[in-house]
Amino acid sequence: MTTTPRLEIEYCTQCRWLLRSAWTAQELLTTFSDELGEVALVPGTGGVFTIRLDGELLYSRAESKGFPELADLKRLVRDRIAPHRSLGHSEKGAR
Amino acid sequence: MTTTPRLEIEYCTQCRWLLRSAWTAQELLTTFSDELGEVALVPGTGGVFTIRLDGELLYSRAESKGFPELADLKRLVRDRIAPHRSLGHSEKGAR
Repeated sequence: MTTTPRLEIEYCTQCRWLLRSAWTAQELLTTFSDELGEVALVPGTGGVFTIRLDGELLYSRAESKGFPELADLKRLVRDRIAPHRSLGHSEKGAR
Repeated sequence: MTTTPRLEIEYCTQCRWLLRSAWTAQELLTTFSDELGEVALVPGTGGVFTIRLDGELLYSRAESKGFPELADLKRLVRDRIAPHRSLGHSEKGAR
């Protein structure tokens, strides 16, 4: 019963990253309300903070050390599900 | 790649119920962080506010008119995924 594109945020409950995850989810659902099928919050442990889009790894804290910049994350999502969308001022000076 | 038990909140984007949905998701993930596999936020239209647990309908705004009381919703979820858990003071005087 999942809806695609499915974005998944797995977060460490021990690290108390629920609020960060929920904020990220809301930002993505605000920007891509017509394009995203769903955003799933997945409780995990052991310092995990991993973001996947339809199974493809977009971000892993273990690999990248630290957290994703929201503008960078939106570009990663945009490139995959809405390639012709402009993200407005957040793209000015994009890497 | 979903994790069960899966709770799903489908909300109307036109009605701007993202914040309400995200708040509900965070409340449930705070209370049931060890029991829930995931909570999915699913953008919808047409006044929808529907909550399902592993496909079972727990709450539908169309049927119930209005929104669920969080304590009631937590009891519905608890009865299904953590039947022996007490919900503390919110159960005092429960209907």
